[in-house]
Amino acid sequence: MQAIAVYEGTNEPEIIDLPQPEPDDGEALVRTLRVGVDGTDHEVISGGHGGMPADDDYHVLGHEAVGVVEDANGTDLSAGDVVVPTVRRRPNGDNEYFERGEPDMAPDGQYHERGIVGAHGFMADYFTSPAEFLVTVPPELAELGFLVEPISITEKAVEHADASRSAFEWNPESALVLGNGSLGLLTLAMFEQRFDRTYCLGRRERPDPTIDIIESMGSTYVNSNETAIPEIPDAHEAPDLIYESTGYAKHPYESIEALAPNGVLALLGIPGDWEFEIDGGKLHREAVLHNKAIVGSVNSHVGHFEAAVDTLASLSEPFLDNLVTGVYDYENHEAAFVNDNSTIKNAIQFSRYEERR
Amino acid sequence: MQAIAVYEGTNEPEIIDLPQPEPDDGEALVRTLRVGVDGTDHEVISGGHGGMPADDDYHVLGHEAVGVVEDANGTDLSAGDVVVPTVRRRPNGDNEYFERGEPDMAPDGQYHERGIVGAHGFMADYFTSPAEFLVTVPPELAELGFLVEPISITEKAVEHADASRSAFEWNPESALVLGNGSLGLLTLAMFEQRFDRTYCLGRRERPDPTIDIIESMGSTYVNSNETAIPEIPDAHEAPDLIYESTGYAKHPYESIEALAPNGVLALLGIPGDWEFEIDGGKLHREAVLHNKAIVGSVNSHVGHFEAAVDTLASLSEPFLDNLVTGVYDYENHEAAFVNDNSTIKNAIQFSRYEERR
Repeated sequence: MQAIAVYEGTNEPEIIDLPQPEPDDGEALVRTLRVGVDGTDHEVISGGHGGMPADDDYHVLGHEAVGVVEDANGTDLSAGDVVVPTVRRRPNGDNEYFERGEPDMAPDGQYHERGIVGAHGFMADYFTSPAEFLVTVPPELAELGFLVEPISITEKAVEHADASRSAFEWNPESALVLGNGSLGLLTLAMFEQRFDRTYCLGRRERPDPTIDIIESMGSTYVNSNETAIPEIPDAHEAPDLIYESTGYAKHPYESIEALAPNGVLALLGIPGDWEFEIDGGKLHREAVLHNKAIVGSVNSHVGHFEAAVDTLASLSEPFLDNLVTGVYDYENHEAAFVNDNSTIKNAIQFSRYEERR
Repeated sequence: MQAIAVYEGTNEPEIIDLPQPEPDDGEALVRTLRVGVDGTDHEVISGGHGGMPADDDYHVLGHEAVGVVEDANGTDLSAGDVVVPTVRRRPNGDNEYFERGEPDMAPDGQYHERGIVGAHGFMADYFTSPAEFLVTVPPELAELGFLVEPISITEKAVEHADASRSAFEWNPESALVLGNGSLGLLTLAMFEQRFDRTYCLGRRERPDPTIDIIESMGSTYVNSNETAIPEIPDAHEAPDLIYESTGYAKHPYESIEALAPNGVLALLGIPGDWEFEIDGGKLHREAVLHNKAIVGSVNSHVGHFEAAVDTLASLSEPFLDNLVTGVYDYENHEAAFVNDNSTIKNAIQFSRYEERR
């Protein structure tokens, strides 16, 4: 079968030929439909994040997949089921986090992430997975099912943010998303359903397709070149929830004061080291006197994927049409990895759902 | 009646003569037994925190009180009930936070704090309070009831910290208290009941009475002159919960990395402005990749006071004996405000519980 991988020491995805995998006990064989491309893939390609599987000199890419069960192999699944795989897998033997269905809470060394660290990804004609990590998706979501994984990331972050505000009556009205990439826009669409007012911060100038999407859903675009985060309360309002998806290292420190009293900051972006000066006393005091919370969140578990399936089904078709800027056959995978201002969300297609119906 | 107050422009508490207050509808008249002294009182005295009541040029001190109902005044209380007052009061008219019994979540301007900002405190022979803000205490806690307020501060902070970890199965084993003042030690005693291992960080050298208390309860003293917070994971272990009660501005930034994966940092201290350099990228990344949370917490509501009453009843007598280093009649209040290394927790006595039985 064909797969898309990067070889050790290179920074270019290429098509490689691999034997079709055979499912072990408890695993199903899945025919891949589509695999989304995101910032993490670019970091894996460049070597900035993640790491190769231990025994190979290449890394099959991709962690945002949707496929069709080809061989249920005695699991509870059925051939023909549309499924989305979760990302984390047991590294070497079981551990308490996997045992309790919360691999997303496992610390370093207690997980592999398919397509990211220690395990091959899903950019291949077929993949196998333990059935426990395959979430069933209604057939009508087969084409867009690669969006379930990124949505699940936000489901988890918001679940944790909400939990942090569950010791009192929290009635949030407004939310600010930092970042207008595909995850930011998906999150903004989710927030539009929940909050009275939403804002999305980016650094792009008009005309820009992400600004069009933001405004078409009734949200307010905040150009960070004109309005820095600390100025947002005066220019607009102090948001009850701020969601950081860019990994820009200064964002958390700029956001603490901008948050409304009793607000929460959810952090998802992953910055590199960067030393800079802050008024650490002021931020510390502000967090205390206004009961603010900060919640870091990474990865997601089966429950978040299940919630994400419902969320995906609820998002408007025009929004999703505008979000997905390109779906490319795997032979043209180079086009899917182009990352310019016209790209929002690309996916690579390995097969069509209808093909074998 | 006699009261202890600071006049505008002075920094010395003095005894003043005031008319005995008369309870309004819904209020009870309380004869004061004892009022604790804490760091906030010292900040109010020095003018560093809080503010005078609008119409007076003096401020009656004290927010950690216990008293006996002298006149229930038609409320649900009974004369002779031992009560502890909460601290926040409606400022000018009601607001949503008071309506729902969560004045601790009210932002600036939507509360007064008795003895701290905008309202007189409890250091007087008598005080009045709406009955809704008086928490009944068993008579056997009449002498130590002034500890209910500080304990309630930790009840709230821990409730919020636990809430932030409630979206997954959190099984914390260890806790670190930053600060060996009276609030730190009370919190450490509470943590000793819950965690397998506890640590308390201070900057004092032996011999020191707080170190004796820490070690007598089976906890480990960490001398910050020898072991800085970032070194604690290697020297001891990475704590699941870190509780900051000193207001030292750098503590949060030093604590994020020291926390165990999935851990939570509760902030209660209130620092002034202080600019310094941090590796903001590293801390941001660490919070995300290890699902860490930070929760700021101020004040407490009736429910936290009720929990604190049970907690106080559960603390060991030897611990409490060592914690309370002095109880002074109000004529000798100067002694109660002395703040040296032999002082842990002082209180001022206005009357005795037995007097009028």
